[in-house]
Amino acid sequence: MTTRRTQGEPSDEAADRLAVEAAHRAYYDAWERGDVSAVGAAWLPDDDVCCVFPGGEPTVGAAAVRAQVEEGVALTPGIQFLFEDVDVRVRGDVARLTCIENAITPGTFSLADVADFPEEMVDLPSARLAVTSTFVRTADGWKLWMHTVGPVLTHLDLEE
Amino acid sequence: MTTRRTQGEPSDEAADRLAVEAAHRAYYDAWERGDVSAVGAAWLPDDDVCCVFPGGEPTVGAAAVRAQVEEGVALTPGIQFLFEDVDVRVRGDVARLTCIENAITPGTFSLADVADFPEEMVDLPSARLAVTSTFVRTADGWKLWMHTVGPVLTHLDLEE
Repeated sequence: MTTRRTQGEPSDEAADRLAVEAAHRAYYDAWERGDVSAVGAAWLPDDDVCCVFPGGEPTVGAAAVRAQVEEGVALTPGIQFLFEDVDVRVRGDVARLTCIENAITPGTFSLADVADFPEEMVDLPSARLAVTSTFVRTADGWKLWMHTVGPVLTHLDLEE
Repeated sequence: MTTRRTQGEPSDEAADRLAVEAAHRAYYDAWERGDVSAVGAAWLPDDDVCCVFPGGEPTVGAAAVRAQVEEGVALTPGIQFLFEDVDVRVRGDVARLTCIENAITPGTFSLADVADFPEEMVDLPSARLAVTSTFVRTADGWKLWMHTVGPVLTHLDLEE
């Protein structure tokens, strides 16, 4: 179910949605090129930020989120993201974006090539993921407040 | 990392956090007793609601969320929830709660006992899940805007 901006909407809301989608895209662009500084700058500079990565527990707090995100970037060299069903809704100074994230990876790689990890091979398969991102409007643009990424089990359909 | 309300905080924020945690608890209490009406009433009556259940894609829109939630209640008879690390933060009229949800289930059961499904047995193991819930303040109390539940892989620790 996809709701995209359309012609004829109130311009402010349409502009907000465009800006939120641009912030989302900038975050993932920075991740793709391994720019941890830009990835970190996409977040609110406050301690109430939180994130959930696939298989992980909620990570709460600015320092913890930053560490988690920097580790995530370090562990996903060469990753690329393709999005489906991007849906943006704005409520005043808070907006949320949901989408499907197709994370395309180079496959197996050596951690020793990318970080100060023991020399071992890591299998990082491409994956289909469910994303929710909640942004807050600031003087410096829309910033991430919450971000969840979860695995999509494509065979999961109890009704079939 | 857990932040709980403490004595001496501004009373309004402490009251808000208590109210949000109570709304969270009421939602899960209703789920435990299979009260689909109360579970549905915990959500904003607006079309920008969304949810992500374990292994699923984002579900967007009032009707779709309600259908998903009602199916979830129907498929989890006898479930009980125990929470850890409940953390509530308030930003004006929006609040978010993160926690670990320990979902305790009766194990294997027959779908035919609980719903109009074909007579088959379903294995519903107990699970450790990561929850994020975003609430909006309304005249009728705090209502769910977004809700994500994802599986926690307890063996996932690349740094060990």
